[in-house]
This record gives sequence, C-alpha cells and structure tokens, in this order.
Amino acid sequence: MYSHQYLKDFTASVFKKMGCSPDHAQIIADVFIAAELRGLPSHGMIRLKDYFQLWKANRINVNPNVKIIHESPSTAVVDGDNAIGMVSAHRSMQVAIEKARQAGTGWVATQNSNHYGIAGYYSMMALEHDMIGICVTNANPLVAPTFSTQRMLGTNPLAVAIPAGKYPAFVADFATTPIARGKLAVLEKKGEKSPLGYVQDKDGKPSDDPSILSKGGSMLTLGGDYEHGSHKGFCMASIIDIFSSVLSGANFGPFVPPSVAYLPVLEEKVGVGTGHFFGAMRIDAFQPADAFKAKMDKWIETFKNAKPAVGTNGVIIPGEPERKKEEELKVKGISIVPAIEKDVQEIADYFGLKFGE
Amino acid sequence: MYSHQYLKDFTASVFKKMGCSPDHAQIIADVFIAAELRGLPSHGMIRLKDYFQLWKANRINVNPNVKIIHESPSTAVVDGDNAIGMVSAHRSMQVAIEKARQAGTGWVATQNSNHYGIAGYYSMMALEHDMIGICVTNANPLVAPTFSTQRMLGTNPLAVAIPAGKYPAFVADFATTPIARGKLAVLEKKGEKSPLGYVQDKDGKPSDDPSILSKGGSMLTLGGDYEHGSHKGFCMASIIDIFSSVLSGANFGPFVPPSVAYLPVLEEKVGVGTGHFFGAMRIDAFQPADAFKAKMDKWIETFKNAKPAVGTNGVIIPGEPERKKEEELKVKGISIVPAIEKDVQEIADYFGLKFGE
Repeated sequence: MYSHQYLKDFTASVFKKMGCSPDHAQIIADVFIAAELRGLPSHGMIRLKDYFQLWKANRINVNPNVKIIHESPSTAVVDGDNAIGMVSAHRSMQVAIEKARQAGTGWVATQNSNHYGIAGYYSMMALEHDMIGICVTNANPLVAPTFSTQRMLGTNPLAVAIPAGKYPAFVADFATTPIARGKLAVLEKKGEKSPLGYVQDKDGKPSDDPSILSKGGSMLTLGGDYEHGSHKGFCMASIIDIFSSVLSGANFGPFVPPSVAYLPVLEEKVGVGTGHFFGAMRIDAFQPADAFKAKMDKWIETFKNAKPAVGTNGVIIPGEPERKKEEELKVKGISIVPAIEKDVQEIADYFGLKFGE
Repeated sequence: MYSHQYLKDFTASVFKKMGCSPDHAQIIADVFIAAELRGLPSHGMIRLKDYFQLWKANRINVNPNVKIIHESPSTAVVDGDNAIGMVSAHRSMQVAIEKARQAGTGWVATQNSNHYGIAGYYSMMALEHDMIGICVTNANPLVAPTFSTQRMLGTNPLAVAIPAGKYPAFVADFATTPIARGKLAVLEKKGEKSPLGYVQDKDGKPSDDPSILSKGGSMLTLGGDYEHGSHKGFCMASIIDIFSSVLSGANFGPFVPPSVAYLPVLEEKVGVGTGHFFGAMRIDAFQPADAFKAKMDKWIETFKNAKPAVGTNGVIIPGEPERKKEEELKVKGISIVPAIEKDVQEIADYFGLKFGE
C-alpha cells in the first residue's frame, strides 16, 4: 500500500529522470495518480512501463515546445510537439479555459500528441473556473464500425464535467464502447466468457471469447449490434475521431499511432500523431453561475430521488463512484498488484531511484 | 403520392392559417418536409395534428418574439417566446452561425421553446457556411436512467453535421436510446414482440412488450442494460438534458412539457418550456476549409472501404441513407398513410383549405 503522495512524487521523479522538466513531470504524475485514486488503475501505474519504453525507443519528446499554431477568438489548434500526452493535453485545456475567459467558450484541437491518460482529468480542470469542461480523444484502433470487421476506431472516450453547488460536480467520463479494453483482459485472466455484445470474431459474428482480439476479432461500439443501436455508438466514436483528428491535423481512425513501443510505428500517415479535442464553456456566458449551480443541485436531487429499479440502489450521478473512491484511497492508500510493482521496480533500478519504503 | 413541393406549400398554408407569418410558416413547413424526404415520417406530416391541437388549446405562440436575452462573443441564450419549436430553433441556429462567423464558434442555449422536429435539420444549416453544426434537445420524459424505473429523460437526440469535399456531408442524427419511440408503436401494431434491451417493465425487469409504456414501463438508454453500458447512454442523455435546460433556463428531465395537447400541462416547473442547445464551428477557425474537406473525403473513403462483415454491405457513412432517400423521394413523391391523410384532411377542412389534387 502506497500513499497517493508517495506515488505521485515517485512518478514525477521517473519522468524527471527521462528528461522532463519538473513542471511537466508534476503534471504527468498528477494525471497518473488521479487515475489510481479515481478507481481507474488501467490508466495508472500500469502505464508507466509503456511511457518508459516509448521514451527508450525515442518515440516521445520529453522536452516539447507545445504551442498554438492557429487560432480565432474562441478556438485554437495546438501542436503537441510529440509530447507525452498529459503535457500537451494539460496545456491545451489551459488554452481552452483562457479562450473561454475572453470569448465565453474555448475550443482547442490538438495534433501531434500521444496517449494522455484519463479524459476526465482535463474536463475537470474547467470546474474551478466555473466552466463546463469537455474532452475527447482518439486512440489506437480496436473497434469495428457497424457492419465491418476491421478495427477502425479507438475506444474514443468522452468526458464532460459540469459544476454544481452544494453537491459535487457532474463528471461523465466514458468510452464509446460497452466496456473498456481492460475488462476483456480481466475476463480472459479469470478464464471467464465475455457477455455477448462486447466483441465480434474476424467475420463479424457475435463472440463470447474475451481473447478474440488476438484472433482477428474486434470490439463493438456502444449498442453492441445494429438492432440495439451500435450505429449510434459508431456515430459517437466517429464524431470524436473527426473532432480529434480532422480539426486538429492529427491522424484519424486506423492511422492513430500505437501508444505502446512493442507495436511498430505505422508506415502510412494521414496527419501528425494522436489527436484530442477540448472545450471550456464559461457558465456565466449563459446563466449567472449561482443560479446555474442551484439548478444543477436541483437536477442532481431530482435524479438521485428517481424510483430505484427492484434490487438496485437507484440512480448513480456520473462522477459519484469515482469521487467516493478518491476519498477512500486518499486515506487508505493505493495498492499495486505485484506484477506492476515489479515493472515499476525495474524502472526505478534503471534510473537509480528507490521505489518503496 | 404528393410532391414534396406540394406538401411544403400546403403545410405552410396551414401554419399561415394558424396565424404564423409567411416566413415562419415557410420554416416550419421546410422542417416538416425535410423529415418526410429524409425517411423520418415520424417527424413529418403525422405531427401536423399535434401542432394543430396545441394551437387550438392555445398552448403555443404563433406570433412569437424570439430574442437573445444574454450573450458573450461566442454564446447566447435565446428566449423562444413559446414559439413552435422550428421557429425558435431556426433562429437560434442562425445566431450560433453568426456568432461563429465573428468568434470562430457560436453556442446557443434556447429556453421557452417546443418540439422542433428533426435535430439534423438545424445542424445541417451550418454546412453551407463551411461550418460544423451541432444540435441537441431535451424532450418528453419516456426514458429511465440506469437503475431506475422512472421516466426521467426524453429520447434526447444528438445531431452533428460535418462538411466534406467531393462527398456529401457527414450527418449523424440519433436518439440516445437504442430505438426511437415510433419503432415500439410499429412493433405493437404488427403484433410483434420487442427485442430485449429496448424497454423495461414498471419494476425495472427486462421486457419484450412493445406496449409496456402504457403499463408503467419505460424506455432504456443506449446500451440497454448496465452490463452493456446503459450508464453511458444515460450520461449522454443527461449531458444533452443539462445543456438544453440548465444552460438555457428551460425545464429539465421529468419537467419537460408534453409536445401533445392531450397530455396536461405539468403543474411543477423548474424552468421555461422545452430547451435546445446549438453549436456552430467555423472550419477555418481550425484548418483551412479546403484542407479540412479533403481530409474528410479521405476519412469517408477509408471508412467506406473498411472490410464488410459477412452478410452485410459494409460501413454506412452517417447521413448517407437519409440523403439517398431524399434524392429518391424528390423524384418519386411522398406517400402518406390513409390515417394521417384523414387527419390532414380534417385540418384542411377546418381552415377551408384544399388538400390533395
């Protein structure tokens, strides 16, 4: 068990050893540990090895010049300069917030970036400014469009953070697939079958094999099959892909570069790096902030009080479980499974750092 | 069989008889007939009776003063003045486009409006200005959040129109439920069962009864059940509800007023009327329009060429089927089922108008 502060400091020290500035290392470590605290360890310490190996392969830039390359009063395109995704994403969201301060809203499309951890982190940056925050990204292709068997899209998440008053903020952060990829790995390790509607085989037939991705299969979009609206999940993933790539100048769909060093760099490119898209909307560009927050409280109360289905605890307000987990783990500490501890220890040894107390 | 121009002129003449200005009547008729042409008759002539009865019940304003009541460089709140939804929505999208011209993007939240037909219509208004158009609305509560049995949300659609170059635009327009409500009515009339994942009974148990809404049941969000990501559909419907109502000052969720006169006006209000939210993003606030369109063409080609699943015709680009239907029906004409023809005839008789040739 590690305190979140210990893990954050350690993670920052690793990225400083890679050559990141102290400021950048701090940002990266903060996003890593936010994933752990919010109960999303699939985007936490387990990823340290991926970034380490990308760095060793000289595939990410630890000393980037992240800059605006095009702008209007409410928009900007940011060149991430092949930065570690957290660095370009954090800067891009800052630009969106600054634009919103001036123009009411700010919208930033980012090219030449990399995997940035949890989308929710950046959307939540808007909250302290009394703004709504929005963040999407494209990602490595694993997902087939409706009526296709080809992996064309990432699990392309959407995160939206909306301030409330006496209640915690509404924070939605979800992949546009029924499940995250990590869930398949868990089912596979447990030797369990996958429910139908998550994946299909190489011919596009329904599959309950959680290891089907290694056999030419693909993940399905939210909805699962056409009869249940998978084309709507495809629309969402496509919109996120287009905003992240065509608006920014990054690669789209099947051309998104891998976020791990053991997969080769793609030969064909249709843009520069991975793409993200960020939005910030100043609440008082629409309503007085206090009135808005009071109404959000009423919204939250109304939905919390909706009649529960038999055998359930009723409606969960988006962001509630993650916030509770964060409170719990800040006190209790964060546990890391031995296999990941071992990877982290090897990285510590490489840099002559001490890991663990 | 009626020509679309005939139906448009007739529909406009009905709304003029109700007291709408010629301009407003033209806008309303255009949205009505766009629904018919795009193969969405559930939002076409069948709705004429609903608006007629709302007008007779004095529940909509045919002579509205739709106006901006708050604004920033890139945002506005529009008061629809209880207009027929098409009138306030059309004006709101114009404001969003005008804002985008000046500030790069424009975002408009509209209160005090009513049912506005197909969301896609307004998103597509942006295309001719080389802008991306976005449009969402809340709607009468029929849909239960995950883990609840209470109808708290509408089928809250999202429409996004993105310009391309040599190919037609990408136009996604979909409800955040597996199916539109009309599909349940069709299954019921055919005496068929509903696939699981569309609706639940009053206790929250899965149901295959397409008439379950009349027995205390509710529609499910996209995903169907929790295991298949219905909480993600709930997040989407909630975000659309909040943008449409809390940002605009309209009613949210269960308080959205009915769009038909046979349902009573709700006693409790948390805002004014139905709410919508509109966005317009000038492409060249991000990328030169020509470069963007060429890349969208490449996106469309790439996805069209993705390997088809066995037994299918492959990927459908969003908006493609609706555009083909429109081309077909502009030549072939629009057929209206006898029951709706009869309703329309009664409205024509009421106003002393001639319907049919």
